[in-house]
Amino acid sequence: MSVTIRKIAKDLKIAVSTVSKALSDSHEISEETKRKVFEYARQLDYVPNAYAGSLKNRKTRNIAIVLPEVADTFFSNAINGIDSIAQAKGYHVMVYLTHESCEREESILQELRGGRVDGVLISVSGGVKKNSHIHAQVAAEMPLIFFDRICDEVDTAKVLTDDFESSYKATNHLIEKGCKEVIFISAAGNLSIINKRQEGFIKSLHEHGIEVSEQHTVLCSENENESYEIIKNVLSSDRKVDGVVCSVEKLAMQVYRACHECKLSIPHQVKVIAFSNLQIAALLAPPLTTVMQPAFAMGEAAATLLFKSLAKKIDLKKERIVLPSVLCERESTA
Amino acid sequence: MSVTIRKIAKDLKIAVSTVSKALSDSHEISEETKRKVFEYARQLDYVPNAYAGSLKNRKTRNIAIVLPEVADTFFSNAINGIDSIAQAKGYHVMVYLTHESCEREESILQELRGGRVDGVLISVSGGVKKNSHIHAQVAAEMPLIFFDRICDEVDTAKVLTDDFESSYKATNHLIEKGCKEVIFISAAGNLSIINKRQEGFIKSLHEHGIEVSEQHTVLCSENENESYEIIKNVLSSDRKVDGVVCSVEKLAMQVYRACHECKLSIPHQVKVIAFSNLQIAALLAPPLTTVMQPAFAMGEAAATLLFKSLAKKIDLKKERIVLPSVLCERESTA
Repeated sequence: MSVTIRKIAKDLKIAVSTVSKALSDSHEISEETKRKVFEYARQLDYVPNAYAGSLKNRKTRNIAIVLPEVADTFFSNAINGIDSIAQAKGYHVMVYLTHESCEREESILQELRGGRVDGVLISVSGGVKKNSHIHAQVAAEMPLIFFDRICDEVDTAKVLTDDFESSYKATNHLIEKGCKEVIFISAAGNLSIINKRQEGFIKSLHEHGIEVSEQHTVLCSENENESYEIIKNVLSSDRKVDGVVCSVEKLAMQVYRACHECKLSIPHQVKVIAFSNLQIAALLAPPLTTVMQPAFAMGEAAATLLFKSLAKKIDLKKERIVLPSVLCERESTA
Repeated sequence: MSVTIRKIAKDLKIAVSTVSKALSDSHEISEETKRKVFEYARQLDYVPNAYAGSLKNRKTRNIAIVLPEVADTFFSNAINGIDSIAQAKGYHVMVYLTHESCEREESILQELRGGRVDGVLISVSGGVKKNSHIHAQVAAEMPLIFFDRICDEVDTAKVLTDDFESSYKATNHLIEKGCKEVIFISAAGNLSIINKRQEGFIKSLHEHGIEVSEQHTVLCSENENESYEIIKNVLSSDRKVDGVVCSVEKLAMQVYRACHECKLSIPHQVKVIAFSNLQIAALLAPPLTTVMQPAFAMGEAAATLLFKSLAKKIDLKKERIVLPSVLCERESTA
């Protein structure tokens, strides 16, 4: 027993065993006592060895976020949402980037099974291979929660936005503004959310009596310049595309570039709408109409589910939260 | 000794002790052997317990990045740079956000002393209090490297860009384009990099025979709307400000908003230049002239120093890397 633990017990007038249990985050100790002990321990500059503690208690006070990248406004805001909850709970957040590689994602999940974290929040990568077996395996061993990009077939909690509905509304918006030849563009991959958005897009075309063909959906690349070339070819073709639904923020930038290059005026010749959380969408030339996902709130919701599950208050298998996206009309669809 | 370790040894035809040492990343084992062992262990789905390993070896294979936020193109690109190096070395990256709070930063650093990580890469927060004592303390116990936002007085490695020089050049650029009343705007805080940028700005004014007063530097707030109001007041005042150096990306957005609101044309009435890594700067109305920091490369450089230090190949106290920023001229200063 360390000198510091004895001192904390004496000064706070509680039992040494209570201090010890509080420092190891035992469920036997009230949250208030834990807070007091942690605060005083900090004042004394007492740092319990994280690993020594972990071995005994099987609690790391780490949570992992596994996601494709941080240089994206949806993900960076979602991280902030998760972090705000984790900080309040005294947990550490580890961020792992998959860069859209399934192999990398698999290897990260394998390593997380080694006991580094108490739970995992994941937005899956857009590679071709399916990793649902490893997601299921991890979910069997520790809490795992999907946010945004999910594996439908894995039986655990999911936090989503209404991708189908919001894409349906976005497409309706373009058609109501007079677009006759609307396309849906997406990046490579086999993502749950993109499939939903595509289904919403197709439903809208159907309802407006438009016969849907393969030409209506354009598959771009993970590579920026390749995407740019694909988009430029479609926009400058004889089809006279006059409306674009961008299912990914990054593609909107390539659509803008391509329109500038082909001297196509937005919104007069081509109307553009994008799934995006860019704060500066309003400052683009022209201001971009966006479907804003509730990124921060989705992060908060996912983290909240995780902590409820760690406190044994819920069964993750039964949880599914859907938060609505918001259509922000701006000049690009005027 | 686990069955798996014996199997790995047998199948790879090496000693059991070699496998064990390789899995615990011993310096006695060659990198090639380690790679072989790790790869085969993964094939066998063998997950060494991270914590059990750590206690004995004092190596966690985790590194921490401590930084103000991720919703910023500089930081998200720097994280990608760090991550690219860490992944290649088989390390895990933990990201801690301070949200510009010194208290939060101090508490994070205190906790990191508990043995969760092998090293720390930090870009300090912009709060008022100085935490250099705790930075120094951590640096004494484990490798700590500053990137971008540094504490000058702490004796450890620093990875920087040429803030003074690039701000000096940015200001020269505005004056050469005809600006008579140039201001420098920054957010609250007491940051090394902002001070350098301000010094570069002042040097340029001096050299152009402009008498420098307090009015030339405008201090905004951490709060977006407060910053917006401050900027709007300055731009609509009788001073007829015709040139703005934004020392932070976020403020550029507020300058654009304020100019739109006050019907001030960029670049005809006000020219704007900003320290920013925004990929879509070219698509803003009008396209924004930026000082692009080498964010990814700075992340790579900081991580590389850390791994060299962990391999005992360098003395961090002697390291200081300065990578140049690049001025990208666009319409906002035409």
